[in-house]
Amino acid sequence: MNNPLRSDFTIGFLGAGQLARMSALQAFRFGIKVAVYSDRPENEPVQFMTPLTGNGSFNDVDAMVAFAEKCDVITLENEFINSDVLHQVQNKSGTPIYPSPDSFSLIENKLIEKQTFENAGIPVTPYSLIKNKDDLGYFGNSHGWPYILKSSKGGYDGYGNEIAENTEQAFEAFEKLGGTKGHDILAEAFVDFTHELAIQVARNTTGIAVYPCCETIQENHICTAVKTPAKISPELQAKAAELAVQATEAINGVGIFAYEFFLTGDGDLLLNESAPRPHNSGHYTIEGGITSQFENHVRAVLDLPLGDTSLRKPAAVMINLLGTELRNTQTDHAIQALESSDGHLHMYGKLQSKPGRKMGHFTLLGNDVERTYLTALKLTDDIRI
Amino acid sequence: MNNPLRSDFTIGFLGAGQLARMSALQAFRFGIKVAVYSDRPENEPVQFMTPLTGNGSFNDVDAMVAFAEKCDVITLENEFINSDVLHQVQNKSGTPIYPSPDSFSLIENKLIEKQTFENAGIPVTPYSLIKNKDDLGYFGNSHGWPYILKSSKGGYDGYGNEIAENTEQAFEAFEKLGGTKGHDILAEAFVDFTHELAIQVARNTTGIAVYPCCETIQENHICTAVKTPAKISPELQAKAAELAVQATEAINGVGIFAYEFFLTGDGDLLLNESAPRPHNSGHYTIEGGITSQFENHVRAVLDLPLGDTSLRKPAAVMINLLGTELRNTQTDHAIQALESSDGHLHMYGKLQSKPGRKMGHFTLLGNDVERTYLTALKLTDDIRI
Repeated sequence: MNNPLRSDFTIGFLGAGQLARMSALQAFRFGIKVAVYSDRPENEPVQFMTPLTGNGSFNDVDAMVAFAEKCDVITLENEFINSDVLHQVQNKSGTPIYPSPDSFSLIENKLIEKQTFENAGIPVTPYSLIKNKDDLGYFGNSHGWPYILKSSKGGYDGYGNEIAENTEQAFEAFEKLGGTKGHDILAEAFVDFTHELAIQVARNTTGIAVYPCCETIQENHICTAVKTPAKISPELQAKAAELAVQATEAINGVGIFAYEFFLTGDGDLLLNESAPRPHNSGHYTIEGGITSQFENHVRAVLDLPLGDTSLRKPAAVMINLLGTELRNTQTDHAIQALESSDGHLHMYGKLQSKPGRKMGHFTLLGNDVERTYLTALKLTDDIRI
Repeated sequence: MNNPLRSDFTIGFLGAGQLARMSALQAFRFGIKVAVYSDRPENEPVQFMTPLTGNGSFNDVDAMVAFAEKCDVITLENEFINSDVLHQVQNKSGTPIYPSPDSFSLIENKLIEKQTFENAGIPVTPYSLIKNKDDLGYFGNSHGWPYILKSSKGGYDGYGNEIAENTEQAFEAFEKLGGTKGHDILAEAFVDFTHELAIQVARNTTGIAVYPCCETIQENHICTAVKTPAKISPELQAKAAELAVQATEAINGVGIFAYEFFLTGDGDLLLNESAPRPHNSGHYTIEGGITSQFENHVRAVLDLPLGDTSLRKPAAVMINLLGTELRNTQTDHAIQALESSDGHLHMYGKLQSKPGRKMGHFTLLGNDVERTYLTALKLTDDIRI
């Protein structure tokens, strides 16, 4: 790539949600232009951040090629696209895409992802492709009831997941997820874990940069908070970093990647999910890291040297601010959060709020993770969106 | 003001340079919309950051009213406008402007500014309004030759300033600045200073927040670097903060303000210039402060609580990246700067570079101001723009 630090250089994002938004803010900081392709322009806030927009579905190759031709490089903010579409867009437009379509093809759906990482020697949660009712019963009887059924494509925040308690109920869930007619469906065993961990890795031709391993707190399959660093031994921190590097190299990944692990009672790390993009678990890095995941996303894609991933303070806690009302977005009772020292409010500019929707986040830096977590909860408790 | 933390809330900037750009990035972080009014849209990079733009001169009341009607609040990024225009825009559009037209009228030109602060009991550099050739000679004979002639309006980075060595040469300079036909011209004595200092203050109905006093390094009337904190006694730090608060209260200022002081050999602080907006001396706060001047600018204008102005590390140094070539903007040899730990590159997206133009800046955080300054100079020495 020619020197990307030019005012006429344009980075294009496929997807226009908060992840593209926060990466875009970083791209602007490097003095380059930002373009955004959206499959639901009327619902997305990034349209207010640039006049360079493209619209269409993630299957509309022509629309995406037209968009890509206006960009110098393309990157992703979600996985709702197919690698063959990415291949076509890259080939027809001549605009490089990072993570590359080849990398993406190795993790683009949950089944392929499991196989890729298993083949690379990375421990993953027990899983199986489900093709029929017999498979449903067999998996439960082998790995225990209940277990989880997942659509291999398109799920997020618990959408696309179902719990299977017994064969009958598993079959209902299977049909609900599309059965034999939709995307592949896989079964995953429940893992008896003590912590859910996550880690981010940036990589390009200049090197690889790994963030500290953090702990994610989930409620109803939605991440509600992230505590950094995770309260685990230095050995486990090192092990998580090692596995994350191994996984990124296994797919020859260029960009920023996130990996979610289960830590079992036996002290084993099992890779649960990966994401070839900035990740909710890394939002704390905006203030908590010397270089944010969004800056390293842009640096990685532009093939610039990667920035220091160290923490600024001993503790960084992020609280997701979920919608509480069905209404035009309005953030009420955020005064306490704004008044706090080293507390940082981020709102995503989504036009409509609804209960449970990710509307923003609040990061608090401190000296002790647990105390900072309790303070952050208290500071955000009154917020209504 | 109603709760401004709404997705349909728009903050409008009069002016579209790097100061509006960096404030806009902060406004986006609060999930609100950004609009920009520019008098030279073809030259300004903020057009790539929002589709909400207005164009026209800073005297075109109708164009500005049309722009203001699309905004919920208006703020400034320069002083190239008249308070009577601001009054008309505010009255006709109904959109509040902060800093208010009344505040602005007290500092909108250098002569009024001096009088305002002098009346408030703040020591200022010796000055006089110059009306004719006799005044030119009288000032030099009273305050010493050489001295400086300044246009009372529109100057920046040394533009609008002339040095007067003797009466004949003073008259030439006077005529060059517009003589009796243009803006008022004032004479200012050269002050025998040991340091040039600057300080930022944010203020609104919720309170007042003062940044640490920093030292600015100037070459040919252009700021080349800022070192924070300034190497002065705690008493002088406190005195600078006190004067800055006094100055902001004297104009009932709402927004962010910067004050430049000369520190004389006798240990006196003399107010040199003020700015009712984010200021180059405060760019270091983006990473060096817990809350940046741009965030506190937006908070002040939105009447949200002001954020903590403390330093993140013992030393923060900012190097201005000035254009070195006449060409389309391209930042070469920035690798060392990008590779540094806790070094932060900001480019402004200006389409054209030219020697001496402010194209970006680089902030380095460290533990010792002088060592950090030397390192920052070294890291940016090769950069060509």
